[in-house]
Order: sequence, then C-alpha cells, then structure tokens
Amino acid sequence: MDASKRTVIYVSDGTGITVETLGHGLLAQFDGIEFRAIRFPFLDTMDKAQECLSRINELYESEGVTPIVIMTVTNKEISALIHLGQAYFIDLFDSFIAPLEEQLGARYSRAVGRSHSQAHPQYDKRIAAMNFALAHDDGVSDADLKSADIILVGVSRSGKTPTSLYLSLQFSLKAANYPLIPEDFERNELPSRLLQYRSKLFGLTIAPEQLHRIRNERRPNSKYSSLENCRYEVAAAERMMRREGIKWFETTSRSIEELAVQLMQELNLDH
Amino acid sequence: MDASKRTVIYVSDGTGITVETLGHGLLAQFDGIEFRAIRFPFLDTMDKAQECLSRINELYESEGVTPIVIMTVTNKEISALIHLGQAYFIDLFDSFIAPLEEQLGARYSRAVGRSHSQAHPQYDKRIAAMNFALAHDDGVSDADLKSADIILVGVSRSGKTPTSLYLSLQFSLKAANYPLIPEDFERNELPSRLLQYRSKLFGLTIAPEQLHRIRNERRPNSKYSSLENCRYEVAAAERMMRREGIKWFETTSRSIEELAVQLMQELNLDH
Repeated sequence: MDASKRTVIYVSDGTGITVETLGHGLLAQFDGIEFRAIRFPFLDTMDKAQECLSRINELYESEGVTPIVIMTVTNKEISALIHLGQAYFIDLFDSFIAPLEEQLGARYSRAVGRSHSQAHPQYDKRIAAMNFALAHDDGVSDADLKSADIILVGVSRSGKTPTSLYLSLQFSLKAANYPLIPEDFERNELPSRLLQYRSKLFGLTIAPEQLHRIRNERRPNSKYSSLENCRYEVAAAERMMRREGIKWFETTSRSIEELAVQLMQELNLDH
Repeated sequence: MDASKRTVIYVSDGTGITVETLGHGLLAQFDGIEFRAIRFPFLDTMDKAQECLSRINELYESEGVTPIVIMTVTNKEISALIHLGQAYFIDLFDSFIAPLEEQLGARYSRAVGRSHSQAHPQYDKRIAAMNFALAHDDGVSDADLKSADIILVGVSRSGKTPTSLYLSLQFSLKAANYPLIPEDFERNELPSRLLQYRSKLFGLTIAPEQLHRIRNERRPNSKYSSLENCRYEVAAAERMMRREGIKWFETTSRSIEELAVQLMQELNLDH
C-alpha cells in the first residue's frame, strides 16, 4: 500500500457511530490521503477483541503502513488487548471519559446505544420530527404547518428534502418544505397558505447550471430540465423571495450539514 | 443551577456536528446529569471568540458550576482566547489533530465542511442514496429494487422508514422498504415482487403493545391500531418471515443507530 492510502479501523463496544463521525471529521482534513474504513462495532468480548487484534496486525504486515485505530471501549481488559496491536491509536475513552468522570463527579455507565435509547423522550421527539418532515415534504400537506420550526421554500430539486430530513434526524426539528413552481411565478405571488407563516420561511436556491444537471438525471431532455427553464425558475424564485423579504441560502457549494447548521443560526433554533 | 445540571458549549470553526456528535456520545453515558447544549459553530474570527469567551464566563458565574466546552478550532490565536474561559475543555484539535499530522506526515488543512463537501463524489452518492430511500419508501415503487443494498420488510409502523433513511443519510446505502400487510397474511405469501430479491430482505418486528401505542397516535380507536389487530399482524409477519428464512430484528428496544449498524453487519455491508 502506498503512503497515500491508510486503513482506519473503528472499534467500539457500541454502534461505533461516535468514533466514525469523529474519524470522518478529523481525517477528511488531510489532503491527498485516501482512507479505507473497517468497522468493529459491538466489540464486547475478549474473543472479538482477539479477532480485532489479529486483523490489525495482519493489516500492518500486509500494508507496510501503520493502520489508525479510532476506538472507544469501556472494559479495561478488552481495551488493553486491542492496544497491543501495531497501530496508531486514538482512544476516546482514555482521552476523555476518565477525566470527565472526575470533572462531573459521576461514574460513566456504559450502556450500548444509550445516547439514542428509545426509552429517552429525545428519541420520540426525533421520530416525531422525522415523520413531520416526511408528511410535509414537497408541500404534500399543510395540515400542521403551524407547528413547524421551519418551512423551506425553493424551486424543485434545490435541496429542500435532504435538508429537511437532516434537520429532523440530526436536530429533532420539525422542518416542512414547499416548492415554488412556475404557476407561482406566473401569478407572481407566494403560495397563499404560506403567508401566515412568513417568519418561519427560509429559501434555498441553486446555480442554474447545477439545477440543470440534477434535473436532467431525472427527466432528460425535458422542458423541466432545460438550462433555459432552470435559469428562468431560479431567477423568478430569487426575485420573489427578495420582494417578500425571505432570506435564502445558496445550496450549490454548501453541504447538507452546513446548510442545516446555518439555518438553525439564522432562525435562532440553536440555543 | 444544581449539580445535576450542566451546560455544554460546542465550539467549532466548522458546522460543529463532529464535536456535537462526540459530545452526545460521551455525555449520555453519565447518569442523572441533565446537559443543556449551547452552540458556537463557524467560529472563525477573534470577535466571535471574544463573544464566546464572555458567554462561557457568564455561565460560570451565573450557574456556579464549571461549564464543559467541547471544541475544535484550527486557528491557534482563536483557540487560545477561548481557552482563557472558566470551563472544562475537551479539545479535539489539541488532543488528536496535531499528533495525527505527525503520524500521517501530512498537514491538516482546515476547510469548513470539507468532510461533507459537495465536490466530493461521496456527497453525490449520499444524496442518490437518500433519493432512493424516499422513492422506495413503503413499497411505493419497485422500479429499481435490483440496485438496492437492502430491502426492509415488516408491518406498518415497525420502524422501516426511519431505519431506511438513516442508512441512506449516514452510510450512503440504498435502502428500500416494503410493508407486510393483512392481504399478504391472508394469501400467506410474501409480496411476489420481493421473491427475486430474497438475499437482500431483512425483517423488522416490534412488540405488539408498542405498535398499538404508536398506531393509536395516528389513528385512534381504529381496527388498524387495536391491540388485538397489532398482535395478529406481528404474529403473522413473524410466522411468514420464519417460514421464508428471512432474518429479523426486534425494533422495540433498539435505536435507529443500533439497528442500522447491526443490519450492516448482518448483510456484510460494513467493510
């Protein structure tokens, strides 16, 4: 394996989602290195630890480069066994959890999946938010818009659906979305049912060229996907939002995560 | 503020999603303490750092308990200013990034949202997976089931939709889902269009009492939501899955994250 590739091994006695998210965030910042992920979730027995250790050492031998292990394992014996491997270790438990116990004056009580347990009221809230996002996707229902935390507007394929779903799954927010369509531009008015929720409206817009590319995958060579029509719809939507005083974000160069967090800031939903 | 409450401040020069996910994972394990989150994303100027520092010290004064700051900030000057605050610091940059630079022989190049950039092919793959999950939710389409990574089956409200969406958003997997309905149980056969994809099928099931509670919120006092009918459907679905050799998971006591990771393991989608 050449120096521009590295294997990353995610080890956890839980789902491993925490270590993997941390790993993505850290490693994506190192340019020019391609990382390959291997996962060992629910690693909670010495047998599994032994298997993981063997795998680490095989990788070290076969690749000739030190693999990176990002891990969180509560059991000291299991953790120690894995640490015998020929690897570079990032250990969340050692780095953070033991010191936190002291700071909080409380014991860490490892419970797999605890942070997302269904017994937790937070869990119900998240599922309710996701059901809300699905029920209020693409303007399909305005039954309960008054309970929305945010209502996204924009032309078809401007990124409303993924952003709404992400806001619901990640932050438990009730996000509805509503398309702006050619009929709205001809009437030159916002959809009337949205008017009473003006303070919750936020726009998404997109570069016409990118919109053209995205729509063309769905409906090739249609009027809907033509560059000319994409230019018209985007310009008309932006004109309408400007006139109505609706703030908007460009989605062209933003990831869903960035959009979601910036929307929360704009609408003061983040505290 | 009493000792059973703590304020956690998430500070990042990016979206803050990495620090927040890490924070949730760590703190949820400490029983009996209620954590309140405050977010400072996109903190990339000395002015913003000063504002954050003032807030940290205000919280320390007003609450009489040390707040916890979980942070990742690349700029040394900005980071140093925040570290002046009266807080307990968990600093991902100091703990991990500087040592990783040495290990990888590469420089860390902070780019906000880089890990999720739209320029990245991974991003297109994720959006494609989400569109797939939406297009193949609840059996609405079988147009492209052959390209699915996984097809979840189970009775209505057994958790198929959130699990499918999570698999797509978090792991870029193409997850379809298909309901098992009373007509299937009367015919006593799997929906015929699923038969050719048997190797991709996986079942979700749920305790009848919980199903009853969930359905009753949607359609109170209906046959659909009655405990008797929930018992019948769950038993019939499990019988059918057992006969057809379809593995299944109980969703009653599992979080979406656990389900998603365990499904990936069962279907060998995790390597």
